[in-house]
Amino acid sequence: MELISETKSFDGWHKQFEHNSTSTQCKMRFAIYLPPQHENKNIPVLYWLSGLTCTDENFMQKAGAHRIAAELGVAIVAPDTSPRGYDVADDPDENYDLGLGAGFYVNATQEPWSSHYNMYDYITEELPELIEKHFNVTSTKAIAGHSMGGHGALTIALKNSDQYTSASAFAPICHPVDCPWGKKAFTAYFGDDQELWRAHDTVCLLENLKSHIVPMRVDQGLSDNFLVEQLKLETLEKVNDEKNLGIKIVKHEGYDHSYYFIASFIEEHLRFHANFLID
Amino acid sequence: MELISETKSFDGWHKQFEHNSTSTQCKMRFAIYLPPQHENKNIPVLYWLSGLTCTDENFMQKAGAHRIAAELGVAIVAPDTSPRGYDVADDPDENYDLGLGAGFYVNATQEPWSSHYNMYDYITEELPELIEKHFNVTSTKAIAGHSMGGHGALTIALKNSDQYTSASAFAPICHPVDCPWGKKAFTAYFGDDQELWRAHDTVCLLENLKSHIVPMRVDQGLSDNFLVEQLKLETLEKVNDEKNLGIKIVKHEGYDHSYYFIASFIEEHLRFHANFLID
Repeated sequence: MELISETKSFDGWHKQFEHNSTSTQCKMRFAIYLPPQHENKNIPVLYWLSGLTCTDENFMQKAGAHRIAAELGVAIVAPDTSPRGYDVADDPDENYDLGLGAGFYVNATQEPWSSHYNMYDYITEELPELIEKHFNVTSTKAIAGHSMGGHGALTIALKNSDQYTSASAFAPICHPVDCPWGKKAFTAYFGDDQELWRAHDTVCLLENLKSHIVPMRVDQGLSDNFLVEQLKLETLEKVNDEKNLGIKIVKHEGYDHSYYFIASFIEEHLRFHANFLID
Repeated sequence: MELISETKSFDGWHKQFEHNSTSTQCKMRFAIYLPPQHENKNIPVLYWLSGLTCTDENFMQKAGAHRIAAELGVAIVAPDTSPRGYDVADDPDENYDLGLGAGFYVNATQEPWSSHYNMYDYITEELPELIEKHFNVTSTKAIAGHSMGGHGALTIALKNSDQYTSASAFAPICHPVDCPWGKKAFTAYFGDDQELWRAHDTVCLLENLKSHIVPMRVDQGLSDNFLVEQLKLETLEKVNDEKNLGIKIVKHEGYDHSYYFIASFIEEHLRFHANFLID
């Protein structure tokens, strides 16, 4: 594991590392924020999954999360949003919504994606193992994300409800099997059989829920340009109501899809997770 | 004045505008954060001057300042760091420390710079006039900045002590007449006569101080890579001590030159200014 940068922030440290990933078969970069408490004890971890086009940097630079993490004593890990490198497949048309920066946090089954696009294994297994080996952290972890990363956080928490204390999302892609971003990515990564897509869709997973779910919170800005066509919050609200799932859904007048929206409410999300991460 | 973007943030609004500037003879972009209080009353303004390579965006996205501005009821205006446009001169070698993104907040007297590089007039006269005309703000204003913008904030406040309530800087270029960044820029903008440079240098202005100074605060990270060669905090400390000026200088072990440093202490700067901006 190679240290790329380290910067003091709110009395803790923001660090970037690169390592060779067995899941994605390429060099992966991630960022970690270690609040001052990590000097004296093992602390829990919040994994943050970013949206389309992002890297490990967007959340760390723009969300204003370090201040609250430093108060609460929670580490934050922000992985990249896809494998990268010269031999990693990308959208032939170089659009932002497939390939590089658009891993969707799944294990692709179709060529040319399947050799590197295994972000699900990376996020749920390889990365936590690495983090728990190298830093003063416990195995107690929560997961959160934005947009494509909101989809990632919710689906991962639904499929691994024993692994995470809680999950939250800003403006998640709620029902990717039925929106343009999701259809494009899932066709590429899983092929044409739409039945197979449903295992990677928050609303479908909730419709067929077999086990308990962890505490969940979703925030959505009502001036978000992607709300109607891509995010489809109403599909999540419907299953949440029908099955009485207790997911806390908060709608915000006037807010859009940007990191200004995330920054405005990240404190509430971090305190929500701290309720479950910290005894 | 053309609205480029508007985004809700901490219950207020972040907006970007473009306008044709008479000072710089080109289209200028600036950002303004209007906290929720501006809906009901006229509020004071903090002008933020960014460092080399920045635009109006860096501070607004990375400093985490909206939260505190929204609490205090202070507007923040972040101008660009230089004139821009196809006919605006740039460093022939395209380095980051001269020309575009490197206006140093002065009025250049030498060709080819003097036709557009009039950032001093823009910041001290044209921009406040525009802001006070178009927004619910008072003429009460403070000024702050980072690195080149710290130099800008301190020199502007020293030369206009009746115009600003207070000034502050993160990692300012304290003594540009005696550091590589300053020598390069001042040679280009003012020519070879180094006597003329002294009117644009915080330490020189303080050495020859004729009037009162406004309350000032300077924060400096001690792991800042630019500290020794470019920023030279010790020159400011020396004149501050010798002349008993009362500038509050705070040094921070481990912090570097990045926005993580600014984010860690921006709350203290905003509260410092609020003491003087708000009755």
